[in-house]
Amino acid sequence: MADQKEKALQAHREWQGKLDVQSKARLETKEDLAIAYTPGVAEPCLKIAENPEEAYLYTGKGNMIAVVSDGSAVLGLGNIGGLAGLPVMEGKCVLFKELGGVNAIPLVLNIQDTDEIVNAIAALEPSFGGINLEDISAPRCFEIEKKLQDRMNIPVFHDDQHGTACVVLAALINALKFTGKKKEDCKVVFSGAGAAGIAIAKLLYNYGFQHILMSDIHGIINEENAMNEAQLEMAKKGNPNNQKGTLADAMKQADIFIGVSRGNLVSPEMIESMNEDPIVFAMANPVPEISVDEAKKAGAKVAGCGRSDFPNQINNVLIFPALFRGALDAKAIRITEGMKLAASEALADLIDPKDLREDYVIVDALDPRVKDAVAKAVAAQAKAEGVVRDA
Amino acid sequence: MADQKEKALQAHREWQGKLDVQSKARLETKEDLAIAYTPGVAEPCLKIAENPEEAYLYTGKGNMIAVVSDGSAVLGLGNIGGLAGLPVMEGKCVLFKELGGVNAIPLVLNIQDTDEIVNAIAALEPSFGGINLEDISAPRCFEIEKKLQDRMNIPVFHDDQHGTACVVLAALINALKFTGKKKEDCKVVFSGAGAAGIAIAKLLYNYGFQHILMSDIHGIINEENAMNEAQLEMAKKGNPNNQKGTLADAMKQADIFIGVSRGNLVSPEMIESMNEDPIVFAMANPVPEISVDEAKKAGAKVAGCGRSDFPNQINNVLIFPALFRGALDAKAIRITEGMKLAASEALADLIDPKDLREDYVIVDALDPRVKDAVAKAVAAQAKAEGVVRDA
Repeated sequence: MADQKEKALQAHREWQGKLDVQSKARLETKEDLAIAYTPGVAEPCLKIAENPEEAYLYTGKGNMIAVVSDGSAVLGLGNIGGLAGLPVMEGKCVLFKELGGVNAIPLVLNIQDTDEIVNAIAALEPSFGGINLEDISAPRCFEIEKKLQDRMNIPVFHDDQHGTACVVLAALINALKFTGKKKEDCKVVFSGAGAAGIAIAKLLYNYGFQHILMSDIHGIINEENAMNEAQLEMAKKGNPNNQKGTLADAMKQADIFIGVSRGNLVSPEMIESMNEDPIVFAMANPVPEISVDEAKKAGAKVAGCGRSDFPNQINNVLIFPALFRGALDAKAIRITEGMKLAASEALADLIDPKDLREDYVIVDALDPRVKDAVAKAVAAQAKAEGVVRDA
Repeated sequence: MADQKEKALQAHREWQGKLDVQSKARLETKEDLAIAYTPGVAEPCLKIAENPEEAYLYTGKGNMIAVVSDGSAVLGLGNIGGLAGLPVMEGKCVLFKELGGVNAIPLVLNIQDTDEIVNAIAALEPSFGGINLEDISAPRCFEIEKKLQDRMNIPVFHDDQHGTACVVLAALINALKFTGKKKEDCKVVFSGAGAAGIAIAKLLYNYGFQHILMSDIHGIINEENAMNEAQLEMAKKGNPNNQKGTLADAMKQADIFIGVSRGNLVSPEMIESMNEDPIVFAMANPVPEISVDEAKKAGAKVAGCGRSDFPNQINNVLIFPALFRGALDAKAIRITEGMKLAASEALADLIDPKDLREDYVIVDALDPRVKDAVAKAVAAQAKAEGVVRDA
C-alpha cells in the first residue's frame, strides 16, 4: 500500500498532468495555416452562425465534455477544494478517453456557492457536448445538477450518483438471476443515504424494486430524522410505517444489502439475520462495510465491493465513459432514467445467464465489450424517447 | 479564394473538431487504474491540499490554458456569438500547441455581460496556468481583461490587443534600423482606434515613441470625439493641440502609418504626403488600407500587411504561442509591459541587421526559431521583474 502510494506520486510527477491536447490539423505550410486558421476558418464560423446545429459538424463540441468539480467531496478526502481535486478530475478525463473515446477536460472551481457554480458552468454550454459533475457534496450536488440540466440543452450527469447507481443495478440484475430472487419481493437495505445512496435507491425503484429501507449514521431513516428533501422522500416511500432503529434492526430478513457508507459497520451476525441467500454489496472505500470474505462466510450468496482486488468489483468506470459515448453519439440533450436503466441492463447482459457465478455477476472493470454494448443501448433509448437534438 | 473556402469547409468537416484530448497515462491493467485513478490518485491530491503550489508538479495546470471568447468580435465577422466563434478558438488552440507546446482548450460563452464573464472565468482559475482572451469587442475587452487579471493569479492576455501590438513593434524596430529613423523623432499615424489600435499605441509609447496621432471613422481623435476612456487618454497624450481633421490630414509629414481599420482607406497621394522613406503597415483583413504594392509605388520604404501572400506579414502567431510558453515556463502571475517589450525585441532580433531588407523586417509566420527565442526572453524578463510564483 505504501509502495503504491509512492508509485502514484512518482507517476504523477513524471506525467505532470495526465492529459495532453493534440492538434488534428497539420501546420507545416502557410496554406495549412490559411485552412485551419484565418482566413479559411471564417467559413465554418459563418455556417454555424446560420445554423447552430452545424457546430456538431464543423467543431469538436459534440465529442468534448467537461469534468466539473468544486472539490467539496473528493474521494474519501472530504472538502479539499477544486485545485487539490484536479488529479482526480484529470484521471476521470483519462478514463473518459480511454474507455469511451470521449474528449474530456477538467474544470475545477474555486467557488462552492451553488448558484455561482450553476452560472459559471451554464455560460460554457457552447463549448461542450456534455457536463460530468464530480465529487460535489450532497445535498448541493442534487441542486446543482437539476438547475444546470434545466438551463442547458446538453446532458448533465453527476457520476457519483448515477454512475454508481447504474453499476449497482447491473450487478443486482445478475445477482437476482443467479439467486432466483424476484425484484418485487426483495427487501433492500441501505447503509448510507448521501448522494450515491439516494441515487441508487431511486434507480432501483424505477427498475421495479418496491421495498427499500435506508439507514445512515442516525439509524433507519424515517420522517423525523430525515436530513433533507431527498431522504424524506425515500422515507415516505420505503418506510411508510415510520420504522425506527439501527442498521442491525433494518437488516433482519432483508434480501439485499447495499453499503455506501463507512468501513466495518456490518457484523457477520447482521448478515446471518438476513433472508436466505442474501446479496451483499458493501462499497465503502477503501474499507468496505464488511469484507467480501466475511460476508460470504456469514452466508452471503453473492458479495461484491468497490475494490479491484476482490471479485464482483462495483466500479463506476463500467458506466460513465460508455454512457456518455452513447449520449454523445445520439446527440442526447439530457440523460433520462430510461437511458440509465438501458445502460444497466446492457451492462448486466454482457454475462450470459449460464455463465453467472457467485463471484461473477459483473464484468471486469476494463472489459473491452462494455463501451459498445452500453453506448449502443443508451443511444437507442435516447432516440426512442426523443430526447435528442433535431428530434 | 472560392476554392480555399470550400477546402476549409471540407477540412473542418473531416476534422469534426481540430483538437483531441490524449491520455499520457496507460490504462491496460487494474494496477494502471489504481495509479492513475483510485486509490493512488489520492496521494497527489493530499500533497496539493497541503501545498497548493504542488499543483504545478502533480497536474497539468502549469501547461494548460483556456482560449476564452464570447464571440462578440470574431475575425471580421462581427458579433456572431461564442458557438459560431468556436472554429476560430479551436484554431487558436492548434497554434498554441503546434507553435508553443502549450495545451490550450477553447471556452466559448453564451453570455456577453462583462461582469458575468469575469465571474465565470475567474471561478475556473484552479484549472489553468493562463487565460487567453480572444475576439471580444472593444471597449468591453479592456474591462474584462483588467478585472480578470486583478482577480486571478495567472496571466490573462487579450491577444487581439497585445499579440498584435508585439508583432507590430517587432516589425517597427527592424524598420527603424533599416530606414535609419529614430523612434523619438517619428510621427506615427494610426487608422483605427479599437482594441488593437489602442494596445499598439500604448506599447509604442512604452517602447519610446513620442508622437502618435490616432484616427478612426470620425477622423483624427481628439478630446471631443473620443468614444471611450482609452481613446481619450490617447488623444490627450498624442494630440495635445486638439488637432481635428481627416486621416489624410493626419498623414501629412508622418513617418509611420499603422492601419488596423478597413480596406482601401489610404490613397497613393496620402502616402506621397508622408515624410521621406515612410513605413507603412496596413493590416486590415482581408483587404488592407492600401496594398503593399501600391504603397511601395507611392514611395513607402518599408511596407507590410496581415496577408500571408505578401512579404512582411504582420501575424500575431509570431507572438502569442511563444509568449505564453515563456510566461508558463517562468510560472508568471501576469504578463507585464516589460515582458511584451522583451518579446518584441527578441522577435525583431531574429533578423541580423545586415540581413534586413525592405521586404524582410519580420520573420516568416512559421519560423521555427521564434518559439525558443521569444519564450526565453519573456521568461527571463518575468523573473527579472519578480512577477512569478514563489518570487
